[in-house]
Amino acid sequence: MDFKTYLKERIALVDAALHTSLPGEDILPAQLHQAMRYSLFAGGKRLRPVLVIAAAEAVGGHPEQVLHAACALEMIHTYSLIHDDLPAMDDDNLRRGRPTCHREYDEATAILAGDALLTEAFRLLADPVVNRGIDPAQAMRVLELVARAASSRGMVGGQAVDMESEGKEVNFPTLEYIHTHKTGALILAAVQAGAYLADADEEQVKALTRYAESAGLAFQVADDILDVVGDQAQTGKDAGSDQARGKITYPALLGLADSRRRAEELYERAVAALEPLGESAEPLRQLAWHMVHRNS
Amino acid sequence: MDFKTYLKERIALVDAALHTSLPGEDILPAQLHQAMRYSLFAGGKRLRPVLVIAAAEAVGGHPEQVLHAACALEMIHTYSLIHDDLPAMDDDNLRRGRPTCHREYDEATAILAGDALLTEAFRLLADPVVNRGIDPAQAMRVLELVARAASSRGMVGGQAVDMESEGKEVNFPTLEYIHTHKTGALILAAVQAGAYLADADEEQVKALTRYAESAGLAFQVADDILDVVGDQAQTGKDAGSDQARGKITYPALLGLADSRRRAEELYERAVAALEPLGESAEPLRQLAWHMVHRNS
Repeated sequence: MDFKTYLKERIALVDAALHTSLPGEDILPAQLHQAMRYSLFAGGKRLRPVLVIAAAEAVGGHPEQVLHAACALEMIHTYSLIHDDLPAMDDDNLRRGRPTCHREYDEATAILAGDALLTEAFRLLADPVVNRGIDPAQAMRVLELVARAASSRGMVGGQAVDMESEGKEVNFPTLEYIHTHKTGALILAAVQAGAYLADADEEQVKALTRYAESAGLAFQVADDILDVVGDQAQTGKDAGSDQARGKITYPALLGLADSRRRAEELYERAVAALEPLGESAEPLRQLAWHMVHRNS
Repeated sequence: MDFKTYLKERIALVDAALHTSLPGEDILPAQLHQAMRYSLFAGGKRLRPVLVIAAAEAVGGHPEQVLHAACALEMIHTYSLIHDDLPAMDDDNLRRGRPTCHREYDEATAILAGDALLTEAFRLLADPVVNRGIDPAQAMRVLELVARAASSRGMVGGQAVDMESEGKEVNFPTLEYIHTHKTGALILAAVQAGAYLADADEEQVKALTRYAESAGLAFQVADDILDVVGDQAQTGKDAGSDQARGKITYPALLGLADSRRRAEELYERAVAALEPLGESAEPLRQLAWHMVHRNS
């Protein structure tokens, strides 16, 4: 199967599972449930859920074993975007070319939709029906690692330092802190969740962890580069918006050429980490390539 | 032991456990962790954590078995207050007589502190160390029921309908929907979490569920009454603030006398439900009394 087909099939699985795992738009409170779906089905790349699935498959698992975790990761990612876009945070009007959640609805609804998506993610990770056949101790371990990755020592911590640093002189360690926490932590959790739920052994988890750490950082460096050179029609947001907001980025600190070199290096390190997993890790290699060489 | 001593001892246990389960104020990002503690140690009544412990003790359990769940419930409650107080929601400046989180810090920090407390609550419920000795399947069940109670079909749903209803003509079923979801769901989850973690049998869970449903609604009716007749020095918020905001309340719909009768009725129903549990449920009876006959 070529990678395009692989990706399309996995995304279709995720989208179908997301549809059934969220409360319907007709269930009270209707507007809240509409807002949750509005943001969840806004044309996201589904990178994190596909990483969950691809990591599971890399160690011999099946998409069905990890679909709920894939959905949970996408819900957490979506909640973080809704809250990051709020006026008190990045104050963004557009996300993937459409009005952001608080623009389409209102601020209160956007705050609550984010809260509800985060809560639903953990409910799903603990749902006894979707966890049938999974050792409860393993399910708990996965839930804990996902929660830690999303916590104040993970994703939320990265966003907090990002906000504090706006318009300030920022050094390289702070930039790496922001990136490894704000984006990297959840990408790592996605890969580890897939691995654990598919009963990966210790060596496999180690290899996948190294992969995810490098690929996650590469993804963020590429994101920073895109903000400078990206085409608004493709990224769906204003070019140079990070710069305009006084946000620190890789290109601002290292220059564009060195940032590109850094992204390539990280990509190669991610691929090298997959060596012990052989052929079954091919989708993960392709994913890393696309994380670095994307245009949106 | 008299009830005052009982309460004081249980609250001391909860406060100590909350201190150790949250990241320190010196851990990065420091301001975020300070804001989380600022709101968590703002002089709350610790009703939900004490309910977790009292429910466990009512069926022969020990506080130590359920302390982590008690802390998780208080974190979820605190996050909901931080977000409810935001300018886009209730826009409150005072909470328990002190500046609200977004007033003491800023809006972005308050949003993230709420997000982080919610996340930390679920991490704690899945933490393998605090769950030592608890059947993982039971721990998962508790996590799922807490998440469901906090979700868009529970607490967040109640807050969403509350926001939608501001300044509108609201009927009695809508008022009851708001109250049973916004406050009732988490109070019920607190009692059920304590019961399950202490290995309550089916009959005990049924009795405690009936207790919590009545006591939770009584609590909210009492809250509405306090908003009309309460003393700002004791409640720590503006008297009549619900009314000023066009919020629907029991006294507005039923009148003050009928609201008081309703609260008494619910209190008696809560106490009656505890009949099968005997002497060990005495703290729960006292708690229900205080939930209805409080002045702050």
